Amino acid sequence: MPGNKAVIFKGPGTVAVETTEYPTFELKDGPGVNPANVGRKLPHAAILKVVATNICGSDQHMVRGRTTAPKGLPLGHEITGEVVETGRDVEFIQKGDLVSVPFNIACGRCRNCKEGKTGVCLNVNPDRPGSAYGYVDMGGWVGGQAEYALVPYADWNLLKFPDRDQALEKIRDLAMLSDIFPTGFHGAVTAGVQPGSTVYVAGAGPVGLAAATSAFLLGAAVVIVADLQQERLAQARSFGCETVDVSQGDPRDQVEQLLGEPEVDCAVDAVGFEAHGHGADAQQERPATVLNTVMDVTRAGGAVGIPGLYVTGDPGAVDEAAQQGSLSIRLGLGWAKSLSFATGQCPVMRYNRQLMQAILHDRVQIAKNVNATVIPLDEAPKGYADFDKGAARKFVLDPHGMIK
Amino acid sequence: MPGNKAVIFKGPGTVAVETTEYPTFELKDGPGVNPANVGRKLPHAAILKVVATNICGSDQHMVRGRTTAPKGLPLGHEITGEVVETGRDVEFIQKGDLVSVPFNIACGRCRNCKEGKTGVCLNVNPDRPGSAYGYVDMGGWVGGQAEYALVPYADWNLLKFPDRDQALEKIRDLAMLSDIFPTGFHGAVTAGVQPGSTVYVAGAGPVGLAAATSAFLLGAAVVIVADLQQERLAQARSFGCETVDVSQGDPRDQVEQLLGEPEVDCAVDAVGFEAHGHGADAQQERPATVLNTVMDVTRAGGAVGIPGLYVTGDPGAVDEAAQQGSLSIRLGLGWAKSLSFATGQCPVMRYNRQLMQAILHDRVQIAKNVNATVIPLDEAPKGYADFDKGAARKFVLDPHGMIK
Amino acid sequence: MPGNKAVIFKGPGTVAVETTEYPTFELKDGPGVNPANVGRKLPHAAILKVVATNICGSDQHMVRGRTTAPKGLPLGHEITGEVVETGRDVEFIQKGDLVSVPFNIACGRCRNCKEGKTGVCLNVNPDRPGSAYGYVDMGGWVGGQAEYALVPYADWNLLKFPDRDQALEKIRDLAMLSDIFPTGFHGAVTAGVQPGSTVYVAGAGPVGLAAATSAFLLGAAVVIVADLQQERLAQARSFGCETVDVSQGDPRDQVEQLLGEPEVDCAVDAVGFEAHGHGADAQQERPATVLNTVMDVTRAGGAVGIPGLYVTGDPGAVDEAAQQGSLSIRLGLGWAKSLSFATGQCPVMRYNRQLMQAILHDRVQIAKNVNATVIPLDEAPKGYADFDKGAARKFVLDPHGMIK
Amino acid sequence: MPGNKAVIFKGPGTVAVETTEYPTFELKDGPGVNPANVGRKLPHAAILKVVATNICGSDQHMVRGRTTAPKGLPLGHEITGEVVETGRDVEFIQKGDLVSVPFNIACGRCRNCKEGKTGVCLNVNPDRPGSAYGYVDMGGWVGGQAEYALVPYADWNLLKFPDRDQALEKIRDLAMLSDIFPTGFHGAVTAGVQPGSTVYVAGAGPVGLAAATSAFLLGAAVVIVADLQQERLAQARSFGCETVDVSQGDPRDQVEQLLGEPEVDCAVDAVGFEAHGHGADAQQERPATVLNTVMDVTRAGGAVGIPGLYVTGDPGAVDEAAQQGSLSIRLGLGWAKSLSFATGQCPVMRYNRQLMQAILHDRVQIAKNVNATVIPLDEAPKGYADFDKGAARKFVLDPHGMIK
Repeated sequence: MPGNKAVIFKGPGTVAVETTEYPTFELKDGPGVNPANVGRKLPHAAILKVVATNICGSDQHMVRGRTTAPKGLPLGHEITGEVVETGRDVEFIQKGDLVSVPFNIACGRCRNCKEGKTGVCLNVNPDRPGSAYGYVDMGGWVGGQAEYALVPYADWNLLKFPDRDQALEKIRDLAMLSDIFPTGFHGAVTAGVQPGSTVYVAGAGPVGLAAATSAFLLGAAVVIVADLQQERLAQARSFGCETVDVSQGDPRDQVEQLLGEPEVDCAVDAVGFEAHGHGADAQQERPATVLNTVMDVTRAGGAVGIPGLYVTGDPGAVDEAAQQGSLSIRLGLGWAKSLSFATGQCPVMRYNRQLMQAILHDRVQIAKNVNATVIPLDEAPKGYADFDKGAARKFVLDPHGMIK
Repeated sequence: MPGNKAVIFKGPGTVAVETTEYPTFELKDGPGVNPANVGRKLPHAAILKVVATNICGSDQHMVRGRTTAPKGLPLGHEITGEVVETGRDVEFIQKGDLVSVPFNIACGRCRNCKEGKTGVCLNVNPDRPGSAYGYVDMGGWVGGQAEYALVPYADWNLLKFPDRDQALEKIRDLAMLSDIFPTGFHGAVTAGVQPGSTVYVAGAGPVGLAAATSAFLLGAAVVIVADLQQERLAQARSFGCETVDVSQGDPRDQVEQLLGEPEVDCAVDAVGFEAHGHGADAQQERPATVLNTVMDVTRAGGAVGIPGLYVTGDPGAVDEAAQQGSLSIRLGLGWAKSLSFATGQCPVMRYNRQLMQAILHDRVQIAKNVNATVIPLDEAPKGYADFDKGAARKFVLDPHGMIK
Repeated sequence: MPGNKAVIFKGPGTVAVETTEYPTFELKDGPGVNPANVGRKLPHAAILKVVATNICGSDQHMVRGRTTAPKGLPLGHEITGEVVETGRDVEFIQKGDLVSVPFNIACGRCRNCKEGKTGVCLNVNPDRPGSAYGYVDMGGWVGGQAEYALVPYADWNLLKFPDRDQALEKIRDLAMLSDIFPTGFHGAVTAGVQPGSTVYVAGAGPVGLAAATSAFLLGAAVVIVADLQQERLAQARSFGCETVDVSQGDPRDQVEQLLGEPEVDCAVDAVGFEAHGHGADAQQERPATVLNTVMDVTRAGGAVGIPGLYVTGDPGAVDEAAQQGSLSIRLGLGWAKSLSFATGQCPVMRYNRQLMQAILHDRVQIAKNVNATVIPLDEAPKGYADFDKGAARKFVLDPHGMIK
Repeated sequence: MPGNKAVIFKGPGTVAVETTEYPTFELKDGPGVNPANVGRKLPHAAILKVVATNICGSDQHMVRGRTTAPKGLPLGHEITGEVVETGRDVEFIQKGDLVSVPFNIACGRCRNCKEGKTGVCLNVNPDRPGSAYGYVDMGGWVGGQAEYALVPYADWNLLKFPDRDQALEKIRDLAMLSDIFPTGFHGAVTAGVQPGSTVYVAGAGPVGLAAATSAFLLGAAVVIVADLQQERLAQARSFGCETVDVSQGDPRDQVEQLLGEPEVDCAVDAVGFEAHGHGADAQQERPATVLNTVMDVTRAGGAVGIPGLYVTGDPGAVDEAAQQGSLSIRLGLGWAKSLSFATGQCPVMRYNRQLMQAILHDRVQIAKNVNATVIPLDEAPKGYADFDKGAARKFVLDPHGMIK
């Protein structure tokens, strides 16, 4: 039985690559594992040799110390890999299959899974509906920034790529199917993006860029991406987006300059709870700023998709209300405009097959648009650090040197 | 030319019935009329002899002095009547037709109207999308708590009852089509109510009771109505609702006692911005309490309909943030549950025809459920006062004594 | 190991109750079992003690000799039972659970299942997408009109009733969840039935009556049921339906007499391919008559739900075209009215939980409406014969005398 | 008052350009005008100087003598123009506006218009719901292949281009908004096309090419266009479509060669009732062939959009059934696959604004894809003749030489 090098959270500001145990068909005790999950048998799981596993902005919340993630937690929920072993109950997935893993773990047997709401599966996290690999308060499923990873309910959760060689050719793009591409797409879909729409995407990080990419794939006429980092805004412009620099003042005015009117049809909040202010407040954390802005720049009758993460508690927040997850939101503004709002984890399985098809048939270049940057697993700590500084990159870890 | 007795806002706490001008096919200047609307020609309008016109909870916001409504404003946006005259451009509506008037005024010619979003029509209110009769900041269209009322864009806005005699028989029910029945229905629909759903309705005022009625019409398995007034809760129980007395503590606990689990499938906020707290805070105004409660009692993957009014500014609010329409909302809670939220005025026209059919074919008893109480126009001031005290009644003004 | 009494197709016109093998966790060879399914291991299955199992109109197609069903085929796909044993891979369903079995067998792991299209599961029938128990050309899954039945993929397929005693009280109603109630509901939903709709249901057999019941549950204003058997029409009237006797002439005229206009909003074809003509042709088989009629009586812009079964081949059909599944359809009529059409097996899982809730909370009386009639398993042959003669009954077999 | 040169149907096989009356705000008697429409006052209309007006495949049905169109009928329902005069009741459309005219005439005041079903407006055609300019049995509205055209209910029907100069630059593309682009888009939308879909479009005429263009705009992964004319197939390939030559045998086999599987997710019938057979039958008219083929090549659970025209009567059809609009359809095949079908005129207004945006922001090149070919009005007869021979062109008439 080999060891398994993996990225481990060592405490605020620090991750390390360490050797951990090779996966077995049981969920063992460890940092962050919910006691009710300890010892859970997983005959329905598959073990993957990880081909690509990405660093996500939501990992940063933990690494920055903005959560209660315990030291020793293995990180990583964006996993693409090759099946090397299957549990006795796996019927359709086979050894050798190249697969994408939705970041949300789902049982495929509860009411919510049957309704397609795999982001709030009832059977995988004893704390509350919904789960993910390598994440705080998500039940304790082992993170996948590692050489090998275990995926429960493999027949349900895994998306098999139809052709191995073709998939390896496009692996940078396909690696985005585990989270950010569907997440950005979900933001765009729930914002009501259709052919001809004008779209405002708050945040030019990887999810924001994935939302912008998705908006174009859905036929949007104009996609405006807002951020306060120049490098990220330049990345957005590289594939046809218009941009708003929120450090330069009121986004509404800037939208008007771009469109001739100050409002768009659809807006996506791809920032979430660690938002900064706009204009003079751009250096300050203002957790409700993005929400209030997207209401301001969306036309009456429009919709807002909120894939950006908002949390029930945030010990590091700027004020007591925000520490308890309460934000000062101009709901009356949204109400007066009859806006609708969609929140929550993207149910990846709802979208990943179709987005895979768009990638395989060259209809979309998600890796290029998010500036996917492949690094060895050992360089994960540097990747985390660079991403935290705002690098306009999506870091893809390559544990086995399989990515060309 | 006869005069026209009408209900007039005289200042905080006071309304009076006064004689005003009979309608003409032009929007004349007056209290609250937007200057850009003064002198607007209305050849597309119809003049109605008002058969029934109801007092609405949203009128109370003005009368309580919680808005900037000017003294002298003619009130009333829930209008049912008989067409007595039509403008030269009216083609299909005819003199003698008995009709329901959607409270939202819509042009039937703008992008939003074409998309069915008549609650945010672009052409009737110079201030912002959306309008209503007799309401502050809505362009200045004359209120309909009067003997006669004018309805612009009559062919588009009016819903004709198919048979006059049948309609007069059921006029108490049909009078609810102008606002609260569609508004409650919109709340239920946007909350995702389907056959078999469990539903929580916050607020047992007329809109809440209409939402509960609508939930049953949509096939809900269990409808739970929450309020802190005993009389209103009793009214809800009278047609099969379960009830939660929010003054008695945590609604989530009470839901669990009723259902065996603490969450419902769907929730409707039929209270809005003048909400009170729960439990010990029940006597205090707590504008975000209802929103936070509905997120608490809705299951992961559920939806929340918000027909209750939230405003962009509230001079009488309890704190500075609320005065500017900002509420401290536990959005992280909703996000963790992947909830969706629908806000805004109900686009009445989307629903009124089908709800009329349900009434005419005896599938629903909306007047009984909301305890419709007919009073003469002259008693409007007493109706306003009683309603403000929390009477479990929906007051219907009967200007011409036409209601049996 | 006990034996297992079961209803067996003995050839055209004949069924018999015979002792068969008790189920095991493997699909064994037998009449009608697809060779590719023989020997299939089923560790994911549960064995049920059958509490109720109904005779279905689609069984009659086989028994009448209108299909290629082989002699010896065990019949029955409407199964409700108690779990007595589970395979090693069953995780959530437990011994003692009282459950409803959707008639469509689904793997819960293929693309279609993930999309909620369990009626066209890709992994259970080697011949084509979609399967059912005890049915010709459906892969060979053993029928459930028996003392014991095996359900594969039990965690996915089974709907557990929340309380055993409560469920036994309402077992006549709950027994309809395996097929006809969801099937009728699917017909109504895909026909666009909403509160206030006018609805035409062709066919007053159990599925038609279930569609009518569903239409009322969805809030329909008027439900018109058409048939040519008086007893079935009387059954429809017993719960508030209007009726059309198609043997008495043109349905369109009769609709006009009922509604004042000759068209409804929504239509359901609950007859299928063994349709008879209307008026003078009422004694003749006219396989396209119902389809053409529903187009005729549906308003422009309406929709047609087609839960009634149409087949790809019908050896006993009246003409060569119909023998190959081709029907002479007035598509131009439907096109001129911009109608939409939904066909196919109902994906039972999409609806059965919510309809169970409606039953458990007394919102619907499906057993009474379809005249559910409980008989012992041994009387199945008589039940088949009576049903074939047009008895206005839905026969429920009670193999263990567990139904009060 | 000037005259008005217009294209007139002179009898089977012949059209001519003749001088007719300049439009007035009244519908006058003439060939094909329904008596109930004669003398209808149109104060809500606008008169347009026609900038572009296209020849449509559905015009060919009349010119080929396949309908009861009367001699003398002015043709043309694809109109783009400049407003030169407005009726007294027109409020928002103004002289000088450059506008697109939806081919379906709609009142904007009936139930269907309020529901967005403008293709089946109840108030414009005394014969049945739905109307169009210059078309048989559509009420008698004067055709728009002319120098000047009248558009009733102008505020409702007209789509204004936001900038005149920009619009004139893109007028070839914008001219497709009156019919074929929305019609093809409707086909794709109702077929369920989404990002990643595989799509089969039957027919490489302008509507088929517009459907293919729409499928790409909606994000389709693969678009396969089928026809039997080489020039049209080459046109489809020019913008990235795969093609199937139906004269070369079974489309299902050809789809399998292209995709590795014989079925697509979504299918569009852009041929309609004058379909030819496939393979050896390619020279024969086989009116049900396309419908049966699209069912054959669509996967279980898929959907079929049918923008191709099917008629209620076709005097020139190959057999008696088809003459009465009855086609021999393999409905059982569709039923076994749980397909859904959408038919009817495209409600242009539902889509034209968003497609205009896609054009104005350079997201789609509809004119290039359909090979838009501008000719003078006087050359209309040659355009009709060339199009009838199968030219892979969409002819755009330019009555005033305004198109660069």
